[in-house]
Amino acid sequence: MGRIMVLRMGHRFFRDSRVTTHVCLTARALGADGLIIADREDKTVEATIREVTGRFGGDFSIESGQPWRKTIRDWSDKGGKIVHLTAYGLRLPDVIDEINQVEGDILVVVGSEKMPGEVFKLADWNVSVTNQPMSEVAALSIFLDWHLKHSAFDKTFPNSEVRIVPSRDQKKIQRLSLTTSTRVRV
Amino acid sequence: MGRIMVLRMGHRFFRDSRVTTHVCLTARALGADGLIIADREDKTVEATIREVTGRFGGDFSIESGQPWRKTIRDWSDKGGKIVHLTAYGLRLPDVIDEINQVEGDILVVVGSEKMPGEVFKLADWNVSVTNQPMSEVAALSIFLDWHLKHSAFDKTFPNSEVRIVPSRDQKKIQRLSLTTSTRVRV
Repeated sequence: MGRIMVLRMGHRFFRDSRVTTHVCLTARALGADGLIIADREDKTVEATIREVTGRFGGDFSIESGQPWRKTIRDWSDKGGKIVHLTAYGLRLPDVIDEINQVEGDILVVVGSEKMPGEVFKLADWNVSVTNQPMSEVAALSIFLDWHLKHSAFDKTFPNSEVRIVPSRDQKKIQRLSLTTSTRVRV
Repeated sequence: MGRIMVLRMGHRFFRDSRVTTHVCLTARALGADGLIIADREDKTVEATIREVTGRFGGDFSIESGQPWRKTIRDWSDKGGKIVHLTAYGLRLPDVIDEINQVEGDILVVVGSEKMPGEVFKLADWNVSVTNQPMSEVAALSIFLDWHLKHSAFDKTFPNSEVRIVPSRDQKKIQRLSLTTSTRVRV
């Protein structure tokens, strides 16, 4: 399987910072290799995500300010495939098998309501995670969970400073640098 | 199967309005019956979600300003179960079968970083959708998709004014009141 990158369209500085941060955290936790925020620089979101990756590990990449059309065209030119998540697209259950046969790189495009129509034409697949008004965070998470066949639950993030230990009823964080286990009282 | 309601904790007016709207849209699209925003009234988010439901159908309920502790305790007292989604909880794949055996009502509690520790004790299950820093929107969407066994993709929303028709490459909306199909140029 190739690389999976996410292209976040329609981001507006400050107004969308929190939702875009959710998109980034979701992409990282659920197994994408990195995320590009299209067209607008946002060093604050970049810094937040780099800090998470430094602390919790892995090598998720984050950049912002790349022009969307060039990013999509360059990806296609190099043989990568484009999956555009939109409530208007074909139903995920109807296309997931076809998408799962892709052996190369996949760019997952997510955005807002005002997605340029051209994206629908440039995409190899326009895919809907329900045909209802939806969160792009939710659409991305379900797409990645299906595409990667739930493997995010077993994914390891190397070089982390801390690790969350699954617990029945408390917050339990292991500090890997000191190799001691800390229980945070809740 | 009983009702599924979502309790959205830690909402702050304006600052969290967009993320909370994403939580609501996700809950509705993926098959929950309604959502309660804890502790703080937000008539703007309520109005947005009621408008979506009016247009796209179904009977998703939305309310805000209910105190969280009372909401959880009342739910438990009536025999309902509490599922708290948190990166610190037990892994979803390890507990989903147990949760799926619940025949009564389920309250899914989602929040922010500053979740009161008491919630961990009041919950019947603390459940993690990956043990990484995560979006509550993503966690909720994957939990609902697993718990409802992907049935949201076939869910119908009665009494809608419009319906999105899944399309390979365009925005296609059917207006049900006029029973004509409109293609929106993209």
